[in-house]
Amino acid sequence: MRDIFDAELKQLGEDLVAMSGRVEQAVTSAGQALLTADLRLAESVIADDLAIDALERDLDERCVRLLAQQQPVATDLRVVVSALRMSASLERMGDLARHVAQVTRLRYPRGAVPEGLEGTFTQMQDAAVRVARRTTTLLETRDLALAESIEQDDDLLDALHSDTFSAMLSGEWRRPAQETVDVTLLGRYYERFGDHAVSVARRVVYLVTGDTAHALDPAAVRSV
Amino acid sequence: MRDIFDAELKQLGEDLVAMSGRVEQAVTSAGQALLTADLRLAESVIADDLAIDALERDLDERCVRLLAQQQPVATDLRVVVSALRMSASLERMGDLARHVAQVTRLRYPRGAVPEGLEGTFTQMQDAAVRVARRTTTLLETRDLALAESIEQDDDLLDALHSDTFSAMLSGEWRRPAQETVDVTLLGRYYERFGDHAVSVARRVVYLVTGDTAHALDPAAVRSV
Repeated sequence: MRDIFDAELKQLGEDLVAMSGRVEQAVTSAGQALLTADLRLAESVIADDLAIDALERDLDERCVRLLAQQQPVATDLRVVVSALRMSASLERMGDLARHVAQVTRLRYPRGAVPEGLEGTFTQMQDAAVRVARRTTTLLETRDLALAESIEQDDDLLDALHSDTFSAMLSGEWRRPAQETVDVTLLGRYYERFGDHAVSVARRVVYLVTGDTAHALDPAAVRSV
Repeated sequence: MRDIFDAELKQLGEDLVAMSGRVEQAVTSAGQALLTADLRLAESVIADDLAIDALERDLDERCVRLLAQQQPVATDLRVVVSALRMSASLERMGDLARHVAQVTRLRYPRGAVPEGLEGTFTQMQDAAVRVARRTTTLLETRDLALAESIEQDDDLLDALHSDTFSAMLSGEWRRPAQETVDVTLLGRYYERFGDHAVSVARRVVYLVTGDTAHALDPAAVRSV
């Protein structure tokens, strides 16, 4: 019985890693599509998001089945409940990558990133890809140093998000309202993407250290 | 044992209703603060969001304790797992009300809603308050007709959100970029508020009907 349960917990972990890998792929392609106005790539991100949603449903069903059949307690229970929550965050990260792709598709053949902000969005994209890649590796290795670097890239995403506002609110901004709307939404999608990765990272920290304070208190997590 | 468990499940339900009541209060005040540029009221919403976050943590801890101590199966398990998910949605709705209040505070003493869009935002606010109130009542009564009306108000929120884009992208929009940014973000907050309420409503439908298809397939839910 314990053997089967261990195998199922292991499978749960592997599913989360696979899901995170898909999210990593989604945000990588979404950003590339955004920065190069690649319609075909944007459409593939939008289509592939259905697969991420399906992975979440499968994973959640497996969690509920595990709770019912194995009646886990203590650490095992914590693993299953955390998996439920992490899959929700990963699913949401997939949605946000899809939203970036949708803006790209809406503006095609024009690019959705206004002149002068290419550098900022390239940096946001790079940070988002790093965050996604480290989330996958963190789920795989439980190396808590990665959780810390995810927090740092999330801070960077917040700073870059703030830069987009500074650009738009400077006296020199003379772009059409459409571009202001696009920058506002794209910036928000990247910022939220980082938030969800941090949420996954904190849950891994919680699983490893068993310390809810670390998992819930931003200040505490920053010092992990 | 069963008596204790039933009492605890009942308490869980009451906590969700209480949490939803707080969210209803938060969005009511946030919108009133937004539409009347009421700084004091906006600040109270921002401060009170901590209480909603705390309710979520308490509720989640109680769910995990219930899973560990009572090892629920079948319907009971479904109730506990759904409570975990619904509390996350309600917490997020509280965040979104807080975001509306934060925009209000940032713009004070000016109002954050540009001239000409007061009607649209008043309608969004009314729909959001209805959605929140019905979510509370749905959690209390499990009257599935309310789930349907929540879906309808969510559709209305989407349509009003779309109206804000039409206004900003019309040739007549001559407002400063700051106002374009504010309208874009406020519209998004209200739209997401509706989405989360729909998510709670669908989970209640799932609990009552036991039908995952209804809970996951938007088209199916619309015909409930």
